[in-house]
Amino acid sequence: MNSKFRIGIVGYGNLGKGAIKAIKQTEDMELVAIFSRRDPEALNLIDPSTKVVHISNAIDYVDKIDVMLLCGGSATDLPEQTPHFASMFNTVDSFDTHAKIPAFYETVNEAATKHRKTAIISVGWDPGLFSINRVMADAILPNGTNYTFWGKGLSQGHSDAVRRIQGVKNGVQYTIPSDNAIERVRNGENPELSTADKHTRVCYVVAEEGADKAAIEQEIKTMPNYFADYDTDVHFISEEELARDHSKSPHGGFVIRSGNTGENNKQLYEFSLNLDSNPEFTASVLVAYARAAYRLNKEKQYGAKTVFDVAPGYISPRSPEVLRRDYL
Amino acid sequence: MNSKFRIGIVGYGNLGKGAIKAIKQTEDMELVAIFSRRDPEALNLIDPSTKVVHISNAIDYVDKIDVMLLCGGSATDLPEQTPHFASMFNTVDSFDTHAKIPAFYETVNEAATKHRKTAIISVGWDPGLFSINRVMADAILPNGTNYTFWGKGLSQGHSDAVRRIQGVKNGVQYTIPSDNAIERVRNGENPELSTADKHTRVCYVVAEEGADKAAIEQEIKTMPNYFADYDTDVHFISEEELARDHSKSPHGGFVIRSGNTGENNKQLYEFSLNLDSNPEFTASVLVAYARAAYRLNKEKQYGAKTVFDVAPGYISPRSPEVLRRDYL
Repeated sequence: MNSKFRIGIVGYGNLGKGAIKAIKQTEDMELVAIFSRRDPEALNLIDPSTKVVHISNAIDYVDKIDVMLLCGGSATDLPEQTPHFASMFNTVDSFDTHAKIPAFYETVNEAATKHRKTAIISVGWDPGLFSINRVMADAILPNGTNYTFWGKGLSQGHSDAVRRIQGVKNGVQYTIPSDNAIERVRNGENPELSTADKHTRVCYVVAEEGADKAAIEQEIKTMPNYFADYDTDVHFISEEELARDHSKSPHGGFVIRSGNTGENNKQLYEFSLNLDSNPEFTASVLVAYARAAYRLNKEKQYGAKTVFDVAPGYISPRSPEVLRRDYL
Repeated sequence: MNSKFRIGIVGYGNLGKGAIKAIKQTEDMELVAIFSRRDPEALNLIDPSTKVVHISNAIDYVDKIDVMLLCGGSATDLPEQTPHFASMFNTVDSFDTHAKIPAFYETVNEAATKHRKTAIISVGWDPGLFSINRVMADAILPNGTNYTFWGKGLSQGHSDAVRRIQGVKNGVQYTIPSDNAIERVRNGENPELSTADKHTRVCYVVAEEGADKAAIEQEIKTMPNYFADYDTDVHFISEEELARDHSKSPHGGFVIRSGNTGENNKQLYEFSLNLDSNPEFTASVLVAYARAAYRLNKEKQYGAKTVFDVAPGYISPRSPEVLRRDYL
C-alpha cells in the first residue's frame, strides 16, 4: 500500500527544480513525473532518475497523480495552464500578477468546480505567506497600518533593464529595504511611504571593455520607472566577481503592522523572510500546500482557493493530535 | 436589520476589559453583555453603559449572543467554564496551560459537538499566532529547527516570586530574549539552546525601608526554578519610579525557523510581536477569532477547534473578494 501524496510538476525551470528538491525533503510525498513542453530527452536533469513526460500526455496521469504543481510563469504560462490542468488535477500554482488575480481566480474556479477539483492559486511568499500576515494583522489590529518591504532581493526585471544598457556586459540588481523606513514603522510613527521611500536599489555591473562607466551609471540612475525615483548605487565589478558573489537568487522582506489598542498602546506585528534561494523557498511553500489541495478535495471543497481559505493544519505533515500536543 | 456579530464576554479581568476595547475598534461586532461571578452592581466599569449580567443567568442569552468570549484564567476558570459555555454558545478561549491542552480539547470537543456548537480553544499569541507560525514554518522547511523566544515581557509568576521575598515592598520582573542567542539562530547555526540560554531576567524592586538590599538581590538570583539558572539583573527603584515606568504589561517574542533547502541554501522564517499591552493584544486576537467561531458554526463545523483549524480569511471582517483583490 502506498499512502504518500503523489505529486506531478509542470515546468522544469528554477521553480520546478526547487519543487523536486523540496519533495525530496518530505517523508509523505513522492514525485511521479515532470511534465514539460520540451523534448523529454533534451532536459538536463538534476536527478537522472526523474521521469519526464511531454506535457501533452498529462491526461494519461489523471489517476496516478494527487496534486499537480504548476511551476510555469505568471505572464503567459499560468493563465493558460492553470485552468487547463485544474480540469484534470488538483493543482497548486504561484500566479503572482497581483492586479490580475481576481480574473484569474474566476477562470480557474469555473474549471476546477466543474470537474470537482481543488486549485489553490497564488501560493508562495508574496503572494502567499505575506498575504496571510497582511490579512491576519489587519483582522487583529483594525486600528493600524500594514507595511510590506521587499528585499534584500535580486530583482529579475530590474537586472534585465540594467543588462539592456549599451556597454553593459552583465549585471544584477538588488532591492534593499530602507533601514530608516523600517525603523520609523517599528517606532509606531505610521508614516506614509511610497515604494521608493521604502527601498533603495544596488546594481553590480560588468562593463564591456572600454565602455564609458560614468555614462552607464548615469543611464541606470535616471531610468524612468525602474530607478529614477529611487536612491540607487552602482558598483562596477569583474565577470569573475559576478559569478563568485552574485550567482544565487536571494530574496525576502517584511510585513509589518503597527497598530494601537485601548488607550494608545502600541502593538507591533512583524513577519519576515531572509532567503538564500527565492525559487527553492517558493517551491517549498507550493509543496506544503499540495497537502492542503489534496485534503480539501477529499472534503469536497472544490474550486479555486487561495491561502486565505487554507487552515494552517492542512499544510502540515503532522496529525492534528500531534500538532495540538507539540506545537500549540 | 442587525447584521453585526453579537458578542458576550465571560469575566471582567484584564482580558475581559481588553476584549471590550477590542470590540469597540471593530465595525462588525457589538457587545451584548459582560457575564461575571461578582455582583453586577459592584463592578467598576470602564464604560458605564456596559450591560453586566450575573454568570448564572447566561442561559437567558442563548438566542441573543453569537459567540461568547471566555476571558477567565487557565488554572481554574476555563477547565470548568469552557465545557459549560460550549454546550450553550459558540466560544473562544485562551486556555494556555500547554501540557493540559490535549485533555482540555477532548472535554470541550465532547460538550460542543453534542450541542452543535463551535469552540475555538487556546487562542491568543502563545498559544495562538506563535503556534500557527511554528506549524507553518515546520511544514514549509522540513529540514530545520524551530525556536521560540519570549519577551521583552512582564512575567506575572516571576514578579510574584520577587514580591514574596522578605524586605520586598513591590517589584516586577521582565523576561528578556538573549540578543546573542537570537543572532546565532538568525545566522543559521541551529544551536541547541535551553530556555535559560535563550533568555535573561531583569527585576525592578522596591525595598522596604531599612531592608538588606544585598540579601534581597542574593535571594532573587539564587531562587531555584525561577532565577538560579538564568543571568539575572536586579535594580532597586522607588515606589514612584515603579508606578511611573513599570505599570504596563508589555510582552512579545519571536518564533524563528532556520532551515535549509537544496544544496545548503539557508532560509530564515521569522515572526515577532512587540506589545505594549499583552492583555489588550491577546483580547484582540480572541475578538478576531470570534468571527471564525460563528462562521465555522454556520458551516456546521461543530466541536472544539484550534487556530490550526481556522483559515486566515475566517478571522477577517473583509469579504473573500476584497481579500483576493487587495491583500493577496
